[in-house]
Amino acid sequence: MEPFRFHNPTTLYYGKGQIEKHLADEVLKIGRRVLLLYGGGSIKRFGLYDKVMNILKDAGVTVFELGGVEPNPRLTTVYKGIEMCRQNDIDLILAVGGGSVLDCGKAIAMGVKFDGDVWDIYQRKAQATGALPLGTILTHAATGSEMNAGGVITNWETKEKLGAGSPYTYPVFSFCDPENTFTVPRDQTVYGICDMLAHCFEHYFHSTRHAPLQKHLIEAVMRTIVEYAKRVVDNPTDYDARETIMYCSTMALNGMISMGIVGDWACHAMEHEVSAIYDIPHGGGLAILFPHWMEYVKSTDPSRFASLAKSVFLVDGTGKSDEELADIAIEKVREFYREIGAPQRLRDYGIGDDQLERMAAQAVRFGEIGHFRKLGKEDVLNILRASL
Amino acid sequence: MEPFRFHNPTTLYYGKGQIEKHLADEVLKIGRRVLLLYGGGSIKRFGLYDKVMNILKDAGVTVFELGGVEPNPRLTTVYKGIEMCRQNDIDLILAVGGGSVLDCGKAIAMGVKFDGDVWDIYQRKAQATGALPLGTILTHAATGSEMNAGGVITNWETKEKLGAGSPYTYPVFSFCDPENTFTVPRDQTVYGICDMLAHCFEHYFHSTRHAPLQKHLIEAVMRTIVEYAKRVVDNPTDYDARETIMYCSTMALNGMISMGIVGDWACHAMEHEVSAIYDIPHGGGLAILFPHWMEYVKSTDPSRFASLAKSVFLVDGTGKSDEELADIAIEKVREFYREIGAPQRLRDYGIGDDQLERMAAQAVRFGEIGHFRKLGKEDVLNILRASL
Repeated sequence: MEPFRFHNPTTLYYGKGQIEKHLADEVLKIGRRVLLLYGGGSIKRFGLYDKVMNILKDAGVTVFELGGVEPNPRLTTVYKGIEMCRQNDIDLILAVGGGSVLDCGKAIAMGVKFDGDVWDIYQRKAQATGALPLGTILTHAATGSEMNAGGVITNWETKEKLGAGSPYTYPVFSFCDPENTFTVPRDQTVYGICDMLAHCFEHYFHSTRHAPLQKHLIEAVMRTIVEYAKRVVDNPTDYDARETIMYCSTMALNGMISMGIVGDWACHAMEHEVSAIYDIPHGGGLAILFPHWMEYVKSTDPSRFASLAKSVFLVDGTGKSDEELADIAIEKVREFYREIGAPQRLRDYGIGDDQLERMAAQAVRFGEIGHFRKLGKEDVLNILRASL
Repeated sequence: MEPFRFHNPTTLYYGKGQIEKHLADEVLKIGRRVLLLYGGGSIKRFGLYDKVMNILKDAGVTVFELGGVEPNPRLTTVYKGIEMCRQNDIDLILAVGGGSVLDCGKAIAMGVKFDGDVWDIYQRKAQATGALPLGTILTHAATGSEMNAGGVITNWETKEKLGAGSPYTYPVFSFCDPENTFTVPRDQTVYGICDMLAHCFEHYFHSTRHAPLQKHLIEAVMRTIVEYAKRVVDNPTDYDARETIMYCSTMALNGMISMGIVGDWACHAMEHEVSAIYDIPHGGGLAILFPHWMEYVKSTDPSRFASLAKSVFLVDGTGKSDEELADIAIEKVREFYREIGAPQRLRDYGIGDDQLERMAAQAVRFGEIGHFRKLGKEDVLNILRASL
């Protein structure tokens, strides 16, 4: 494996009843002026808003609110949040929602402590210089944002969707209660599963010479996702299934299964360009792109795909070549997406070929993408075309 | 899974060259007065002592030294360390060695900030009230102490060996360079492997109703240990193998594969009683006890053992009952220990039956032990007798 430094300071609370028991203490450790950040209002419909507000008020916390964070959170909302934090001398941002709300919280947190335009950090023109403390209450299993430092923001004016992070943007604490995901709609549940599985794929197709434990750990998460995905999609209030899928999403991207490896991340880079223009769900875009990326790069190392077939989809490899198993693995991945009802092609979102050139050019604007196989503009175009 | 709180604040550095690049910075973040703690002097023979001293001196750090920490570290050494820290106004304890040195460092760190006898914390009469910062440089893959809060200390006068920990005793930083384990003798390498595998067993035989991802994660670590153990024992300077085994030992006991589960830990409790009296290597004791414990408790849940056979030892389960697979799993465990040259019976250490009663009584002095199956004094006696 590569030499690495690992430090994940997030305090993670999992399970029923943890918010009631520990939220007030965690908030009061940091301060008494809180910016409550949330999305489209589902937390109001399903009672979480009231629960959190009551806990905060009982604890003597002054709450400022910023709702309406978009599914692909926008830079304009980030600017608004930064302004609110500065004007109201906020001690802690409490992001209640899915990955988008959490990512927006991270951008605001960095922006408050940055002397300049926070978008420069996402454009890789500057580095974060600090961040306001961020706490989170997760309501959707997908991005792993509850226990990592990264986040993705969309600049709707320039049609750019970029990720950034810093050692400052790990949430100080995160509460993950599976019951808070019971009301996530079927489609969103599916997209979340596609997203967490994609994180595993990005790790799994790494470019590191020797990392056998990481391989098995990533397979453990993928296998569990595959085992529980259909169950949670079909039975949204199945506690065990929701808990397992939620925990998979946290473990898929908190760094614990990917220490010392350099993941691929080409599909994420490509998907960001698609959803920057078409505003499609991130998980949906990933489910469309991955099988086509796999077809395109499988010859680089068929044995990696063969392992995927055997260890995750439990295919009996006896008498089969790695190339045959690679094809089986890709078919299993397609089958998995089909079974849970994920989209198959870009045209499912009404996307045609008119912006492919632009997306491909944007995808490689910082250089080639991917580590398992390096992709240039033509490669990206080929994969996008195949995904239409 | 059980509701849980997880927080592991250790900054972990892995790989060649990390000490040279980052040790000085990590030390200077904390202070300039360091207690360097080490064991029997192997770090002097193999050059690590000089390397560390040079880095510290170049950084302008004042170093105080406490060498000679015992393999089962003794309370008397802990007292000595506490005294040295207090007299010399130490900012940071830097423990360079294996688990014993690190555990001793944790005890000293807690003791310095405790108004009373630190042994009270190990006896569960008191809780830690703080700790001096501890940094570590690991030279032996075994205990996982480099990234957890626990440690075990032996009171040689009372023949008690007890573990304790607190949120304060996570190392602030730990450096794990596989090359620093190249010179670990064959026996110690074997004991280390037995110890890390035992940690996995303790997690795997948990009493938690539903924890599928944890199951697969623990299997991932066990499978990797089994794959690489023989290789590292036979080729002590095989970098990839040393790295993999070292990384397995960290992951086996840093909490990342065991969130939300209640492990068994009966074998650890029993082994502590054996080595408190006979001062045998912890890993050796565990290798002796585990197969007998497994025989004794297998009827509690044969399916758990069946999974062990299939997922870790890759046994084809077709047409076999869980009970049959359980027997196969236990035989595979025995075979594994035999192949790497681990001890098989207590008599290999010259231990007879004269102290069994005393050990059994001590093992259950805080109540029944174990969670997969609760064991009383008679159960412990039966297992110890079978292990003779």
